[in-house]
Amino acid sequence: MEAKEPIIITEKEEMRKWSRFARAQGKTIGFVPTMGYLHEGHLSLIREAQKHAQVIVVSIYVNPGQFSLNEDLSTYPSDFLGDIEKLKSLPCGIDAVFSPRNLYDYGDGCGRSRLEMAHRTEGNAISCVEENGGGGHQTWVAVERLGKGLCGKSRPIFFRGVATVVTKLFNIVEPDFAVFGKKDYQQWRIIQKMVRDLDFGIKVIGAEVVREDDGIAMSSRNVRLSPDERKQALSISRALSKAKVAAEKGGLVNCKDLRDVVIKTIEEAGGRIDYAEIVDQESLEPAEVIEMPMAFCVAAWFGSVRLIDNVEINV
Amino acid sequence: MEAKEPIIITEKEEMRKWSRFARAQGKTIGFVPTMGYLHEGHLSLIREAQKHAQVIVVSIYVNPGQFSLNEDLSTYPSDFLGDIEKLKSLPCGIDAVFSPRNLYDYGDGCGRSRLEMAHRTEGNAISCVEENGGGGHQTWVAVERLGKGLCGKSRPIFFRGVATVVTKLFNIVEPDFAVFGKKDYQQWRIIQKMVRDLDFGIKVIGAEVVREDDGIAMSSRNVRLSPDERKQALSISRALSKAKVAAEKGGLVNCKDLRDVVIKTIEEAGGRIDYAEIVDQESLEPAEVIEMPMAFCVAAWFGSVRLIDNVEINV
Repeated sequence: MEAKEPIIITEKEEMRKWSRFARAQGKTIGFVPTMGYLHEGHLSLIREAQKHAQVIVVSIYVNPGQFSLNEDLSTYPSDFLGDIEKLKSLPCGIDAVFSPRNLYDYGDGCGRSRLEMAHRTEGNAISCVEENGGGGHQTWVAVERLGKGLCGKSRPIFFRGVATVVTKLFNIVEPDFAVFGKKDYQQWRIIQKMVRDLDFGIKVIGAEVVREDDGIAMSSRNVRLSPDERKQALSISRALSKAKVAAEKGGLVNCKDLRDVVIKTIEEAGGRIDYAEIVDQESLEPAEVIEMPMAFCVAAWFGSVRLIDNVEINV
Repeated sequence: MEAKEPIIITEKEEMRKWSRFARAQGKTIGFVPTMGYLHEGHLSLIREAQKHAQVIVVSIYVNPGQFSLNEDLSTYPSDFLGDIEKLKSLPCGIDAVFSPRNLYDYGDGCGRSRLEMAHRTEGNAISCVEENGGGGHQTWVAVERLGKGLCGKSRPIFFRGVATVVTKLFNIVEPDFAVFGKKDYQQWRIIQKMVRDLDFGIKVIGAEVVREDDGIAMSSRNVRLSPDERKQALSISRALSKAKVAAEKGGLVNCKDLRDVVIKTIEEAGGRIDYAEIVDQESLEPAEVIEMPMAFCVAAWFGSVRLIDNVEINV
């Protein structure tokens, strides 16, 4: 079977035109936003999108708006040609890759203004978009409460950047369906809420976490783990999996007890906990006792690599 | 000639369906968002929209998201049947009125959460949406720098509420063109910037200020002025008009001098100045000398009525 060759689109206007043409032909559009360096987890999102929509757009764009200045924007891994090969290897292929150069360049010569420079001195956390002038970009979408806890604590501008770039991509691609991985549980819930609150005409689909054979959740960052750290990192998925069984089958519903075991397991394996929280699946509010569907979300460092993982607990 | 009867749509999904049907027929959609209580200024926006688009949607919705708790949401004037008559009186009529009951009711039973209640105690300025629970609405669009000065100083949540509801309306109506009045100069510039920054596929058109014969800018709030206040309020447009001539024809380009005259004129007439600022037309940053196209923006109280007006100064 011949591999389907996706069209590669780099311009916003061309992307929107392509989508509108597809829609005018009565086709539904599925969209999978990615930052590239694709792995099996991303491909599973595409397969999920294919269940719902007739044509599939995958975006590859590393968004400076969600990186703060001390994070690793410049060293984020990329392999565009490898990504295209992986997309072509899918049985049904995909239809379009949207790979813009800079989504914050508006081509109107607006640079940093005096006020913008003044604003930066106020001590607000800023993103790489603001650092680089970003064509005077100054509009941000914030999902207020959902973005504050979990990853939002250590990455205060992260979800503002994610919600903003996803809004931009939605407005450019104009899809009917968009698929997000439940591996990034908080991100998925934030995008769901944003789509509801801003009345996007888009259905958001959450795709299950994809794991390696040994249980570790797939992530572009896994390649940065040393062999030793890779072994240590298994502790997250193993501990979460045990906690899920203990809660669902063992009747252990005290959140402090469940968290203590998971934290101890990861720390004993050599990890450093960023957070380990049991939260309501919708509101992401922490609870003391599991009385309704919850998500157990963990972020932990192994060496210089920060990994996240989660399990849903349905009692 | 028989008056054209617009279809009245109250449901989001029906509105989007209507627009998509029009677009599928190859028609371009013009959109004029209003808060109702229509006057000649609104009708001029509609006439502007008719120059650009083949079908016209007018929304009538008083947005609680832009009113803070101490403002006049509950007494904001409305006259739905009168509005419909005015729309029918237009020579070309309009095609659809979108008049939703509550844009923040998502029908999913999500009310206020514990975190939301906690959030309210932090002393943040909040809107009537947050006060009323708003179905757990928590996503806001902010155009950061443009929203801080001028009206943003005395109304800190106003433009966040405007940008958010306009985003919602854009996502529901999905227009090709949207018309905003330059009477609300800051609002117009904010929406322009938002559309650029969030990559909406919509062209924003600014329509000129419409004035009564005596020069006062049309506003729904003018009806609240007593006869005496009405006379006093003329001072704004007269002072601005003189300042424009002095700058453009008289070479008076010192902003402090121009402002001093306008402030004195309005105060002597009996008005109380909220602000009188000469700002860059795009960035809305104040300047000391007029060297490029500027806008002279004024807000002033006459009795209990706050009016705004502006002129563009093109040297």
